Amino acid sequence: MESWFSELQTERLRISFKLRETLYRTRTQFQDLAVVDTYEFGRMLVLDEMVMFSEFDEFAYHEMIVHVPMLLHPNPTRVLVVGGGDGGSVREILRHPSVERVVLCEIDEEVVKVAREYFPRLSAGLDDPKVEVMCRDAIEYMKDPGEIFDVAIIDSTDPVGPSLGLFTLSFYRDVHRCLGLDGIVTAQSESLYTRPDHIRGMCLKYKELFDHVAVYCSNIPTYPTGYWSFTMGSKTMDPRTDWSEERAKQLEPDLRYYNRDLHRAAFALPTFFREWIDV
Amino acid sequence: MESWFSELQTERLRISFKLRETLYRTRTQFQDLAVVDTYEFGRMLVLDEMVMFSEFDEFAYHEMIVHVPMLLHPNPTRVLVVGGGDGGSVREILRHPSVERVVLCEIDEEVVKVAREYFPRLSAGLDDPKVEVMCRDAIEYMKDPGEIFDVAIIDSTDPVGPSLGLFTLSFYRDVHRCLGLDGIVTAQSESLYTRPDHIRGMCLKYKELFDHVAVYCSNIPTYPTGYWSFTMGSKTMDPRTDWSEERAKQLEPDLRYYNRDLHRAAFALPTFFREWIDV
Repeated sequence: MESWFSELQTERLRISFKLRETLYRTRTQFQDLAVVDTYEFGRMLVLDEMVMFSEFDEFAYHEMIVHVPMLLHPNPTRVLVVGGGDGGSVREILRHPSVERVVLCEIDEEVVKVAREYFPRLSAGLDDPKVEVMCRDAIEYMKDPGEIFDVAIIDSTDPVGPSLGLFTLSFYRDVHRCLGLDGIVTAQSESLYTRPDHIRGMCLKYKELFDHVAVYCSNIPTYPTGYWSFTMGSKTMDPRTDWSEERAKQLEPDLRYYNRDLHRAAFALPTFFREWIDV
Repeated sequence: MESWFSELQTERLRISFKLRETLYRTRTQFQDLAVVDTYEFGRMLVLDEMVMFSEFDEFAYHEMIVHVPMLLHPNPTRVLVVGGGDGGSVREILRHPSVERVVLCEIDEEVVKVAREYFPRLSAGLDDPKVEVMCRDAIEYMKDPGEIFDVAIIDSTDPVGPSLGLFTLSFYRDVHRCLGLDGIVTAQSESLYTRPDHIRGMCLKYKELFDHVAVYCSNIPTYPTGYWSFTMGSKTMDPRTDWSEERAKQLEPDLRYYNRDLHRAAFALPTFFREWIDV
């Protein structure tokens, strides 16, 4: 008998992956968590029946959520990751030699545990001595983290349920306060095609706080419409022009998606969307 | 009762659209043809159970398959479309004031009929006096079309069944012979993520015939992985540098996807794929 895992990407759009097997499933304190092995995209982490990442295309997500903001900051030494308990973002952050400290604030410690067991290629960096893994609610944590960060990566689940608070102005006000002089924040911000309203809302919030706001994209097959956005706020640096080509060049040989041409290209947005968000 | 239309995008990956209704279905001489109305993406043309286009995102496909090659040619007056019986490509070609004649060679006249009835926003250009609609097999036609074209757009179905011949070296040899001095061909060439082998094969064939070969992309939610490629062969003009920014600027106000930034960006390819095709 054939077995498939289906995600309802919107109420009216469904994607289904032929299943080799379900490796693990549990109800954590916060969500339904499953690890499935699919034929098309390998292993996937599934939270509340939504695909968080697949082994096949996670690089297209993690390289872009991390390197674009990291290369914009002139000297990122302290980096915060909110969510991202799988470790994929941390792995990419650690490629930057300037980094001295990474704080990962993941609400659900079960995600970290499962990543260590089922996704070693993502989670290996979590054991690096530069990394502190903190299992707590980022909304509470950001009210008084007791330190300043250069770059914050909001690597959250979709804006439903427990993640909703990560998309509010008051949360971003806290993030802004905990960022240094040249501070930069980047958040995953859903699909241009199915959630343009959401991205526009993010941009408007960022505009109240940051001198520079920009949206850029990556192509990620397992996410709705395959065309994913990241919204970026920056205190001083202009995301389109101020990033370091030299440091990007150093990273390129180790990466599978990111390159300097794609960095520039990621900020080019379709006309229908560019007019809508008006940043 | 809920009704869904599902496409098997690969043997192991399925996308499903919640259905408002099936407007039309027939078995033509060549294929199974259906017009369905979906909640997420509006009306769709479905051939052999594969989505050809949706009203929602066809602009992202047609604008990119047409304007990138058209703006590369210094003065496109005669244009050939192979397939594309829906008229979407013809509509975009007619936006170029230099165009004097468009030949549409579509094997299945039922596609043209259905487009005129169910997709007036795509098919309107088919009645333009500059356009000749020819319902015949392009493989035969290209052996001796009796005229020379500036630009050829291969707007075919996927490389299965009747379309297979449109992806062979002998077909492209015919296309090359029927192109003028600065001739350019562009073909839709599937997803970077699921069919990199196919795109590489196209590039190798083009390299035997054309001085310049390039792959560029567009983001189209209804196609597998949402990330679609076009393979381009050009006799004299370099696709990355020789296109007309001035003519592009004239077109921009009328377009929803294409703009000059996206034109440049479309040629930026992820590292994993760039290394694979090596063009």
